[in-house]
Amino acid sequence: MQPPLAGLWTPSATPFHADGSINTGRLIEHCKSLLADGSTGLAILGTTSEANSLTVGERRLIIDACADAGIAPERLIPGTGATALEDAVALTRHAGELGCAGVLLLPPFYYKKVSDDGLFAFVAQLIERVGAKVPRVLLYHIPPIAVVGWSIDLVGRLIEAFPGVVAGMKDSAGDFDHVVEMIETFPGFAVFPGAERHLLQGMQAGAVGCISASANVNARGIADLIRHWREPDAARRQDHANAIRNAVESRGLIPSIKAVLAARYGDEGWQAVRPPLTALNADTRRELLADPAITELLETVPA
Amino acid sequence: MQPPLAGLWTPSATPFHADGSINTGRLIEHCKSLLADGSTGLAILGTTSEANSLTVGERRLIIDACADAGIAPERLIPGTGATALEDAVALTRHAGELGCAGVLLLPPFYYKKVSDDGLFAFVAQLIERVGAKVPRVLLYHIPPIAVVGWSIDLVGRLIEAFPGVVAGMKDSAGDFDHVVEMIETFPGFAVFPGAERHLLQGMQAGAVGCISASANVNARGIADLIRHWREPDAARRQDHANAIRNAVESRGLIPSIKAVLAARYGDEGWQAVRPPLTALNADTRRELLADPAITELLETVPA
Repeated sequence: MQPPLAGLWTPSATPFHADGSINTGRLIEHCKSLLADGSTGLAILGTTSEANSLTVGERRLIIDACADAGIAPERLIPGTGATALEDAVALTRHAGELGCAGVLLLPPFYYKKVSDDGLFAFVAQLIERVGAKVPRVLLYHIPPIAVVGWSIDLVGRLIEAFPGVVAGMKDSAGDFDHVVEMIETFPGFAVFPGAERHLLQGMQAGAVGCISASANVNARGIADLIRHWREPDAARRQDHANAIRNAVESRGLIPSIKAVLAARYGDEGWQAVRPPLTALNADTRRELLADPAITELLETVPA
Repeated sequence: MQPPLAGLWTPSATPFHADGSINTGRLIEHCKSLLADGSTGLAILGTTSEANSLTVGERRLIIDACADAGIAPERLIPGTGATALEDAVALTRHAGELGCAGVLLLPPFYYKKVSDDGLFAFVAQLIERVGAKVPRVLLYHIPPIAVVGWSIDLVGRLIEAFPGVVAGMKDSAGDFDHVVEMIETFPGFAVFPGAERHLLQGMQAGAVGCISASANVNARGIADLIRHWREPDAARRQDHANAIRNAVESRGLIPSIKAVLAARYGDEGWQAVRPPLTALNADTRRELLADPAITELLETVPA
């Protein structure tokens, strides 16, 4: 029995060794810390994880490293999207065989202005080829980065064609109206806003939780907001989460998150990103760590 | 001794079997036909080849299939770009070890608004990690699809840092002024317009040739235009090439090219594309094949 798709699923950042290879030891330490801090589960291999800067073999390695470290597969929603259908099939099948809670599926993002029919065919062939053990599929809608997105019409077709399989969405369109439209158009569809900025409003509107990059540094705050959104101090919790979000987003989201994690875990190596991303320069890093929201965070949430 | 980077390099379309796997027999037949029709060489694994819809293993298979079929590596410029540096390294190294004329390098195209420093680091690490046998690198500039592009400033930095390695560009910006700017800014840099629409003007301005999708159906016409651009009837050749280009481009470039190849080779299987692309519907295909430019082409350039 799979758990409901709800709560905070953190897209864990990926630490690298000095030679550029994945530091699975640091990764597992971080993943366990995120769970201890209140993450319902881990949306490993997302945009924040630099998943598209990893080979398919490395992506598989990360899924296996989590499972091997004793993280229950029901707590994992790996990103398995790829421009090549066969790669998406291989990763999705692997996640399904392990028993993961679901997968987060980017549309194939190389060609632009592709038709809904072409995207439908991609998902249909994926589900068919993965076969009996296909996990629940959450559509990953992030047009600011992938450019290609899942249209409302296409989402409706997919839910109708694959009931119980196409089960939700991470909505990173950056447009709260779109979150509300998804929730209202598709009752029972698990809609996760892709950031916490309007999370309280989102929960009020019927969102099931959140999948947000900045949960890497503020899992506790965001998880608390999801858990206590009906309580009187929810607006204060939202403001507090937004202050932390602003501090990392305004300076480059992924490198800033990694700079905070470097400080939190006391490991400079955490700052490394793979190209084409670049680590924060020393000045920006200093500013970031001196931001009151981050200073407070590092004092109150030690490793 | 590598041949000069010049002439017509055709980005061969990729035929698939009914089960979706690559039809290497049909591919080799097509590649040899393109060379017989006047292509200087083959820019295999480009956008038209659906390279990003193939796994890294399949991309390697296509390079090897060409070499195994007796196509000289000096006639191959494979596309080796990828969002994951390690994949680009593996493919570029393989091309270098085989002795390919060069590689065509997409920028890592998942993250958007990345810095020139990040893209520089991607190329620098690629060249360093491939090592001694690094082939010449042609930058593949196609912002309408990849969104991420190679800025003029970055191209200058790369040429300066890697003289003789960063050797040229396929410019598919779709902006003739940009082609001229590249030629004028970087003397000795091999600039290939990414389509033949302004090829005559491009040759007059100093372009070295062309790398164009529609050469899959009109290699002879485009090769002749490149060879005879100084002659009085060059404008007529340009108009003729444009008529063919218009016929395929206006109906969806890649599926239209494959529909023409299906007719040319008498093999319906040639129409298959991988999702998210879709094959032409029957009506559009009929219109395309009834277009005077295509009718004439199929009569005068039999398989």
